[in-house]
Amino acid sequence: MVFDLIVIGAGPGGYVAAIRAAQLGLKTAVFEKGAAGGVCLNLGCIPTKSLIKSADTACGLARAAEHGVGISGLTLDYAGAHARSRKIAANLSKGIHFLFKKNNVTLIQDTAELTAPDTVRAQSSGQDYRAKNIIIATGSKPKTLPGFEPDNARIFTSESLILRDKLPKLLIILGAGAIGVEFGYVFNAFGCGITLVELLDAVLPLEDRECGRALERELKKKKIRVLTSARAVSVQSGKSGVSLDVSRAGRTETLTAEALLLAVGRAPNTRGLGLEGPGVETDANGFIKVNEHCRTSVPSIYAIGDCVSTPLLAHVASHEGVHAVEHLAGQNPHPLDYGRVPSCTYTTPQVASFGLSEEKLREQGREYKKGVSNLKASGKAMTLGENSGFVKILSDPNTDRILGAHIVAPEAAELLHELLIAAAGNLPVGLVGRTMHAHPTLAESIMEAALAVDGRAIHQ
Amino acid sequence: MVFDLIVIGAGPGGYVAAIRAAQLGLKTAVFEKGAAGGVCLNLGCIPTKSLIKSADTACGLARAAEHGVGISGLTLDYAGAHARSRKIAANLSKGIHFLFKKNNVTLIQDTAELTAPDTVRAQSSGQDYRAKNIIIATGSKPKTLPGFEPDNARIFTSESLILRDKLPKLLIILGAGAIGVEFGYVFNAFGCGITLVELLDAVLPLEDRECGRALERELKKKKIRVLTSARAVSVQSGKSGVSLDVSRAGRTETLTAEALLLAVGRAPNTRGLGLEGPGVETDANGFIKVNEHCRTSVPSIYAIGDCVSTPLLAHVASHEGVHAVEHLAGQNPHPLDYGRVPSCTYTTPQVASFGLSEEKLREQGREYKKGVSNLKASGKAMTLGENSGFVKILSDPNTDRILGAHIVAPEAAELLHELLIAAAGNLPVGLVGRTMHAHPTLAESIMEAALAVDGRAIHQ
Repeated sequence: MVFDLIVIGAGPGGYVAAIRAAQLGLKTAVFEKGAAGGVCLNLGCIPTKSLIKSADTACGLARAAEHGVGISGLTLDYAGAHARSRKIAANLSKGIHFLFKKNNVTLIQDTAELTAPDTVRAQSSGQDYRAKNIIIATGSKPKTLPGFEPDNARIFTSESLILRDKLPKLLIILGAGAIGVEFGYVFNAFGCGITLVELLDAVLPLEDRECGRALERELKKKKIRVLTSARAVSVQSGKSGVSLDVSRAGRTETLTAEALLLAVGRAPNTRGLGLEGPGVETDANGFIKVNEHCRTSVPSIYAIGDCVSTPLLAHVASHEGVHAVEHLAGQNPHPLDYGRVPSCTYTTPQVASFGLSEEKLREQGREYKKGVSNLKASGKAMTLGENSGFVKILSDPNTDRILGAHIVAPEAAELLHELLIAAAGNLPVGLVGRTMHAHPTLAESIMEAALAVDGRAIHQ
Repeated sequence: MVFDLIVIGAGPGGYVAAIRAAQLGLKTAVFEKGAAGGVCLNLGCIPTKSLIKSADTACGLARAAEHGVGISGLTLDYAGAHARSRKIAANLSKGIHFLFKKNNVTLIQDTAELTAPDTVRAQSSGQDYRAKNIIIATGSKPKTLPGFEPDNARIFTSESLILRDKLPKLLIILGAGAIGVEFGYVFNAFGCGITLVELLDAVLPLEDRECGRALERELKKKKIRVLTSARAVSVQSGKSGVSLDVSRAGRTETLTAEALLLAVGRAPNTRGLGLEGPGVETDANGFIKVNEHCRTSVPSIYAIGDCVSTPLLAHVASHEGVHAVEHLAGQNPHPLDYGRVPSCTYTTPQVASFGLSEEKLREQGREYKKGVSNLKASGKAMTLGENSGFVKILSDPNTDRILGAHIVAPEAAELLHELLIAAAGNLPVGLVGRTMHAHPTLAESIMEAALAVDGRAIHQ
């Protein structure tokens, strides 16, 4: 069969690309051997957010009395929260099948192998499919460390742990990035003891340090143990659990727990795909090399999402998908801007940011202005009973444009978007400060942070 | 004593004006006989939002089982939620006293009377205070209807009901605007039976009709009775409660309840203030007449907030306060834009909007494009278990600029701000659609609505 476009992988990169292609009139097929929606929808973003909502519910109960709500006979059953997360993932995956049908996208439920610049072979059926263009969107898988190979009984990756409906009593999490702290937050809420072990010197080490430190304080309030600047030396896995040797400040400590979660990053799915057939080049880490239009070394073949070394995030994959399709369709898509990629962690409080941190700005020797609004001054945060956190805006002193935005707050992931739009529109910070914000909202803290850049905040 | 500026009233208009004046180096005094923060902070926005958080907590429990959280005994005690709301209001009011001190603003705890264009008399002490400029920020009070005079035993206004820590068994609410539906939502959550009676043909009659209808469906799901196009004819108040005759579609129905809440709008506090002394003019409804810089008919005197006929909202008052101060200080403040005033209702789901509704656009005979994203397609809304609602963007087909934005969604009041910024920056809707939004967020539904304006939404 001959198509205009074959997309390999139906994750948030691939399925969005396929639908956009169909909108542009391209005859499109998608290869997907697993569930539509990829890791994001089935094993990542979506089920974890469902579990986080359940954890929020459990945490909220602890404070119900403040609201005149009395409860007795409280039981926490993680299996119930887990079942809900699976149902939501399954429903959303069905939704993508529906969108494929509606847009006349052909779904080929098989494993793809590239055999030529215009040919993909279905590995089970052996059938060849041809297309003018091919988009590789095969995503990524959890990274593992030598000596810490997951057995999915004692040592898990996020993808095996998310499918398990039982909670360990004690869990060690290796890596305090977004995935690690989100699992820690959820499991802790359902009664599991958590120790986070992070190699670098802060939780969320890729975020601005003030954000990481603020979240660390909140995690500790929840009795989560946090070990930073801590190197996992070796692990012993036995019948009763795991035993982990951790080296920290020159001393070695042995931690024991029922299980260990490896949350140390992700690696691209680019092996066994036949890249060498048409000659698609990869880098030293296995990521596919692409130009600014997501085009690989083979002009008819594009690659998007986690199999490319741009930030490994669902929304990056989706936008690359739309960009690649519009480019191969001969349109002139707006450039992809990797300086404004939002990054979100959905703990309580949430952490959300884009652009440069203070550390990066100092590293680059760049001048910057800083406006901070503390949530302690927010009426809305007071009414929510959640006024730990802040909004920090870093701006260019010469142009008044946003260089970085860093939020620790309830709903930080939503709040970030007004600043994303301001940055996308190249608007001055001053405009954010003088735009009327609704009272009472958390967004007022963004207005106040913008005013604070010029020493004009009212509530500080 | 002589000041640069005297502000009459320490509500969200007056206290913000006073602090901004102090920032600009003006010697400033504020008259306030009541609690700092005005109605908004003490009797309005803030205590209702606190009660709404408590109501959200109570409502959330009804669905706890979905999350694996089991509860055997549940008691709802409104007095507890009420006490929390008073504590939060008191704390925030204290915060304003702190800000006054920090900024060297003199607080005069007395009732003000204007006696000349530069003189305010303290009514209790009889002392005169002079200033180069005066800002009137005396706010508003609940409107009453003839024959429906509040007795604060059976017939209440929002300001007397918010101070009461007992819940009626059955409450009739006259007026289904933001205040009416918010009280209905809160009291219903704590077990009070609610009937909403609205003269116009929809709840939230000032909002886009689709928003009002969507909220009406949600209120009905909660067993709130909603009577629209219903005229309250007369009320009888007795020992056991109230009896209200309502005329609707040519028939009269008698409703009985323990109490009645009048939520039919607000009227300016402009009597007994001595406006006639210096000759400050008011309109037929008692609102103070001002020009585009909030200046009254007496050049040295400005008026801001609810005592002026611009939208009676805290954030309007605050922005008018900043504008008036910057103008009287000889600065050149940005024009106040009443076409972009956010309006928010904090029910579940929330309703938030700015700009023109579809009805207004049709009334004006204006062409428009419409982009809608239904929350049923939102992964984040699914994980929250709250996917009733939508984002609707109305835009100018020639310029691609936003004419109106209407959101029914969890956190709608926060979500609205990215569109407020886009409008303030005069950015095209297309830019909102192509800006990378974080996944999974509710804000993605705004991106999708923006894409839908041009038929480009992926998930519809």
